[in-house]
Amino acid sequence: MTPENTPTVSPTQAAREDELVDRVVASFDGADDPRLRDVLQSLTRHLHAFVRDVRLTEDEWNTGIEFLTATGHITDDRRQEFILLSDVLGASMQTVTVNNEARGEATEATVFGPFFIEDSPEVAIGGDIAGGASGQPCWVEGTVRTADGKPLAGARIEVWEADDNGLYDVQYDEERVSARAHLFSDDDGRYAFWALTPTPYPIPHDGPVGSLLAAVGRSPMRASHLHFMVTAPGMRRLVTHIFVRGDDLLDSDSVFGVKDSLVMDFVEQAAGTATPDGRDLAGAVWARVEFDIVLADAE
Amino acid sequence: MTPENTPTVSPTQAAREDELVDRVVASFDGADDPRLRDVLQSLTRHLHAFVRDVRLTEDEWNTGIEFLTATGHITDDRRQEFILLSDVLGASMQTVTVNNEARGEATEATVFGPFFIEDSPEVAIGGDIAGGASGQPCWVEGTVRTADGKPLAGARIEVWEADDNGLYDVQYDEERVSARAHLFSDDDGRYAFWALTPTPYPIPHDGPVGSLLAAVGRSPMRASHLHFMVTAPGMRRLVTHIFVRGDDLLDSDSVFGVKDSLVMDFVEQAAGTATPDGRDLAGAVWARVEFDIVLADAE
Ligand SMILES: [Fe+2]
Ligand SMILES: [Fe+2]
Repeated sequence: MTPENTPTVSPTQAAREDELVDRVVASFDGADDPRLRDVLQSLTRHLHAFVRDVRLTEDEWNTGIEFLTATGHITDDRRQEFILLSDVLGASMQTVTVNNEARGEATEATVFGPFFIEDSPEVAIGGDIAGGASGQPCWVEGTVRTADGKPLAGARIEVWEADDNGLYDVQYDEERVSARAHLFSDDDGRYAFWALTPTPYPIPHDGPVGSLLAAVGRSPMRASHLHFMVTAPGMRRLVTHIFVRGDDLLDSDSVFGVKDSLVMDFVEQAAGTATPDGRDLAGAVWARVEFDIVLADAE
Repeated sequence: MTPENTPTVSPTQAAREDELVDRVVASFDGADDPRLRDVLQSLTRHLHAFVRDVRLTEDEWNTGIEFLTATGHITDDRRQEFILLSDVLGASMQTVTVNNEARGEATEATVFGPFFIEDSPEVAIGGDIAGGASGQPCWVEGTVRTADGKPLAGARIEVWEADDNGLYDVQYDEERVSARAHLFSDDDGRYAFWALTPTPYPIPHDGPVGSLLAAVGRSPMRASHLHFMVTAPGMRRLVTHIFVRGDDLLDSDSVFGVKDSLVMDFVEQAAGTATPDGRDLAGAVWARVEFDIVLADAE
């Protein structure tokens, strides 16, 4: 069990609190859907345990109601503050963790984030996903394999990232498509593409969730990352990122997405260094990273 | 501990889930306000325990986000769906319970509800609070005492209730004032007033919370009740209801407000029975109830 500082209450008081929990739990006994019943009964137990453990005051309860109300009111078609709230409490990452159980050497999953869009452009192996987005060129390559080491041909690899202003294409305008694409692994499971060396960006922090972070001295910044979603027939879908070794934000990622196994060496290449595919970078500094992907079998 | 059906996960998987909880908890270590830190760390632990215990699926997480979003969008100045949500999960009642710890014979508290308003009219002892609201006349009387049995003179007693259409005055229009008043106990701690025999009413159930109740087969009805708020210098404020013995809804009150100690005998009086104060009820059936109130000392 996690440590708690539950104050001592009298046996009469404890009995009143227990009895209430039991009564609320029992109120869900009649649900037709047994899964809905189980989820709500567990939610009830944990919610009441929270109220009891902290001896939540009525003022604090009011603050909580006001916080949820403000979170609801800022949420619209383009802004999802409840997801941000789940993110900064680590609940999104815990849900990802629960739904992607450790299996052998399978690559770890992390949060999906709000910036994926369907119908990204396809690039060939070795193609450039930047599409005009600004940033340092970065060669990304690796192999997609099964847990027992077999190369996976034709795996679909979706990649997307922010530019070096910390913005995704959709944050400029809805029409823009840049720094995102998909490609397919070759017969040996190999893939490679040009992208941008990832840079950090903040989650939206001008709303209630931003105020919460400020109140507890937490930064809204996400560690620099490049998103991947990898699918192949018969394999568990992998949604993940790769992170940049040495990034100062690795230990304080605002949504707790960093896993040690996902931190990669982005190796900077001096200006003029020959590129893997002979691309002419006009003397620019560039970087390269290798990311080998292991997919678990589908359940 | 409450029973949980935590599925078994591998040690590697459990370690990943534990490590995430620890990381999120630690993210609040730097909060300037130690109470805010404690509350958020406890919230984190219980929220993650919930996600892990039920092995929340990503679809279920989405459903939760959508439910909270809809709850936020229906909430406005006149409709507070988050309070309703807290109510039907018993969290409001648990907060009341935690903040009104059992002390000797002190009368138990229950939920405040959304229908109290400041500046109710004053009535003299024996006065009628109905103010034109429809329902069966009901004589309510009792004594206000301290925990060691001393009568409390001059205690302020606020009372409010729905009419027999199940509506509070403010639900008709904002100007209307009926079925609410305040009075003061006399030198012997006695009070008495005419009210209406309480009748049941539903909480608002045309929103997300109503859909939740329907999905689990729960009624939105509240057990019949009369609200009290009793204050006196040096004493803990008491916010409570009295309920009607024999009411079918006592075991299924939608907000879990019923406590056995608050269920009273409302004794119906045949048409023509003489009234305590000689009031002429024109041959109507009426009821009477006695409710003795014990206030705890202020902390
Ligand atoms: Fe991202
Ligand atoms: Fe009420």
